[in-house]
Amino acid sequence: MAKDDQFVNQIADIDTDFPRWYTDVVIKTQLVDYGPVKGTMVIRHYGYAIWENIQKELDARFKATGHQNAYFPMLIPYSFMTREAEHVEGFAPEVAVVTVGGGEELAEPLVIRPTSETVIGEMYSKWLQSYRDLPILINQWANVVRWEKTTRPFLRTSEFLWQEGHTAHASEEEAMEETMKMLGIYKEFAETCLAIPVFTGRKTEKEKFAGAVATFGMEAMMHDGKSLQAGTSHYLGQNFAKAFDIRFLDKDGTHKYAYTTSWGVSTRLIGALIMAHGDKRGLIIPPVVAPVQAIIVPIAAKKPGVLEAAADLKAKLQAAGIRADADVSDNSPGWKFNEWEMKGVPLRIEIGPRDIEAGKMVLVRRDTHEKTEAPLENAAETVQALLSEVQANLLELARRRKEERVVTAETVEELLRGVEGGNFVKAGWCGCRECEDKIKEQTAASARVIVEGEHAEKCVCCGKEAKQVVLFARAY
Amino acid sequence: MAKDDQFVNQIADIDTDFPRWYTDVVIKTQLVDYGPVKGTMVIRHYGYAIWENIQKELDARFKATGHQNAYFPMLIPYSFMTREAEHVEGFAPEVAVVTVGGGEELAEPLVIRPTSETVIGEMYSKWLQSYRDLPILINQWANVVRWEKTTRPFLRTSEFLWQEGHTAHASEEEAMEETMKMLGIYKEFAETCLAIPVFTGRKTEKEKFAGAVATFGMEAMMHDGKSLQAGTSHYLGQNFAKAFDIRFLDKDGTHKYAYTTSWGVSTRLIGALIMAHGDKRGLIIPPVVAPVQAIIVPIAAKKPGVLEAAADLKAKLQAAGIRADADVSDNSPGWKFNEWEMKGVPLRIEIGPRDIEAGKMVLVRRDTHEKTEAPLENAAETVQALLSEVQANLLELARRRKEERVVTAETVEELLRGVEGGNFVKAGWCGCRECEDKIKEQTAASARVIVEGEHAEKCVCCGKEAKQVVLFARAY
Repeated sequence: MAKDDQFVNQIADIDTDFPRWYTDVVIKTQLVDYGPVKGTMVIRHYGYAIWENIQKELDARFKATGHQNAYFPMLIPYSFMTREAEHVEGFAPEVAVVTVGGGEELAEPLVIRPTSETVIGEMYSKWLQSYRDLPILINQWANVVRWEKTTRPFLRTSEFLWQEGHTAHASEEEAMEETMKMLGIYKEFAETCLAIPVFTGRKTEKEKFAGAVATFGMEAMMHDGKSLQAGTSHYLGQNFAKAFDIRFLDKDGTHKYAYTTSWGVSTRLIGALIMAHGDKRGLIIPPVVAPVQAIIVPIAAKKPGVLEAAADLKAKLQAAGIRADADVSDNSPGWKFNEWEMKGVPLRIEIGPRDIEAGKMVLVRRDTHEKTEAPLENAAETVQALLSEVQANLLELARRRKEERVVTAETVEELLRGVEGGNFVKAGWCGCRECEDKIKEQTAASARVIVEGEHAEKCVCCGKEAKQVVLFARAY
Repeated sequence: MAKDDQFVNQIADIDTDFPRWYTDVVIKTQLVDYGPVKGTMVIRHYGYAIWENIQKELDARFKATGHQNAYFPMLIPYSFMTREAEHVEGFAPEVAVVTVGGGEELAEPLVIRPTSETVIGEMYSKWLQSYRDLPILINQWANVVRWEKTTRPFLRTSEFLWQEGHTAHASEEEAMEETMKMLGIYKEFAETCLAIPVFTGRKTEKEKFAGAVATFGMEAMMHDGKSLQAGTSHYLGQNFAKAFDIRFLDKDGTHKYAYTTSWGVSTRLIGALIMAHGDKRGLIIPPVVAPVQAIIVPIAAKKPGVLEAAADLKAKLQAAGIRADADVSDNSPGWKFNEWEMKGVPLRIEIGPRDIEAGKMVLVRRDTHEKTEAPLENAAETVQALLSEVQANLLELARRRKEERVVTAETVEELLRGVEGGNFVKAGWCGCRECEDKIKEQTAASARVIVEGEHAEKCVCCGKEAKQVVLFARAY
């Protein structure tokens, strides 16, 4: 059995058993492990390093648009949940409840935040006095808990990490502008950093956030043609402002309710990039968020000078800001090649006695498997340029899939055929919940986003006049 | 009433009512607020920005010493707590317990981590196979919950943020080396970044971490002469390794238990720097961790060119990596001076029409109130140099207090007089728990650390032979 096959055989076939491929890959590359409590995950350091890179990129974007970080308590009085009618209906069934603290039964049970609109609303109500205090632009990096029956690492776990932005504004226009601005930041981030082009748009009433006036989402197409909701931005109108009495004294001397928004992305994004870019050999991590961007593998490592040259090269690359590492373990080069391919490192650099003598290195791209030689001089520039090419190519591949795999349907049968073929399907919709439910029932596809600027004549389901064009897909 | 007094009067007098001064300052400078659930806090953005700076500094030090970040589940099966006898005794009384999830009573109650030795021990047991896997050097940034009866923002709250390092090693020597290395990093960080010189040393059996073989702590002297435990590093021996079966196959072919450590600091450090450096006007935040290092106050802001000059200067300082801001609100300069003094910004820069004409700015240090003029040219270098001076001076002031306020005692009466005078007290101790308890009872002082390299003849309490010299103090 060839070395290659040993590794490929460790993971299920990506095209015939994608769910199993996913589980194999996330566990074997040590991104994640199962926690002791059912439905929980341990984010191992290789996975957490991706999250740190995501945080760094997003946090810079939030701060550049005037947001500041804060931290709100995780434990929320149960009664807060009930103040906004839709909110409690949506979240009460999935909360974890603390009933005992310090050895005593609590007078009022506390929920572990599933999201923080309620506790943050309570504080904004206290802090907000005058129109001069607006807008309030705050973000929080935190853990949240939602009790889930069926879980999968990164995609759906009872506890996960995320950021949640919560803002308050004087007018509907401003709040809506904020909602769309943050959706735009998520989209730009997904494309620039994760190399994932996304569909964005408004969600249907059925799919919106519990308590929002309108939810806007971004949807990413995965390897199997299913969709993953990768981020959402909610316009909350005055729903939470009324429930928590978030009011301000306006210029005209009257008290008014504020308009609020919330928006979030989570460790789910790690699942998204795995399922968007992986191949049969394992992960392919976009360079911008890769924990290791370039792995140096010394060839004939025991020959004099080889380990030193590898260490020199590593230092040179690191000094240029490249996340480089050298694998100096006892494993064979072939074993290392396969392991680092499985771990999705975008660039492999081989360096052996003959290369050193010739003053060169061998570079192998993870995405195309293309092998090139380059002088050791200017190594950092060469590596940086190649990493940019990998990043651009991953985006291009994902963009091509996203464009090629969208079909239209005029009947539910066509819609079914479309999603079964691994496509997103655009179809007319009358706007009624019954048709949306029926489509879900018959095709296992849900309305991902409402498509702006396109028109259809008839509803794909009931045949009545279409009010909107909707993008349907099966989803994670 | 002078402007100055309006502000000073907002906060209690630092010398006659320090506890009230503390509460006034943390609330009025908007570092923190009380959460809706008793004992919880909201870390507002001005406070959270200090935490972000602390995180950045510490995280770089952890990574430079080979540690990597990961994330472990917050919910821990109750039974895990009971596996290590001392651990459960210490922590069980203060845990928050989840008994309901997803609308159903849980089969086994879950505790919200008060600390993560147990859940991390369980994972290390699974991951650790061979001596080649050692050492394991992992850190986690997380929230923890400990049910507390008496709480105070930053100092003691039911939920707080911290980092907890958890490492596993092949030998006692290595684990002890790690324990002391991390204590050293904490000490260096406290002095370099927080401008707080600390006493470090081993804790007595009574004061050690529940489940540790030995705890080493760092103690910081506050404005009122009381001590604050600002960080701890624990040598856990094989206690948790045996409780959680953390074993490895050693070179000699036998299975051995690992030796583990844990170490942590928390948002308590924010309380430490407030109580170490504040004065009657409010906070004094050391420049290295200050959210705003230099605040620009335009004088005669409506005169042409003033706001532009302030904006230019801000941009110039920010470009040089200085956290500068300009207060362009409608408030009067006097009001701004006082507000930013209360908020502890290390440097104020005044710029008005005459300054602009003369190409200069006025600089006022928060620590010494010293006022100087400097050319606008090279502003960044000037400001950077002054910030370094402020940082050095704060450390020097704290160091002087730390040295001047340590006395020795040969009787419990002397010890009492010492701590009542706002001092730390060195005294001989026989090593028995009875004397330690009696001293606490009679003086309200506890053993902070055991002093290395010093000797005393008699125990301050029973008069028998002293085995150790102990540093006693009243503590937060």
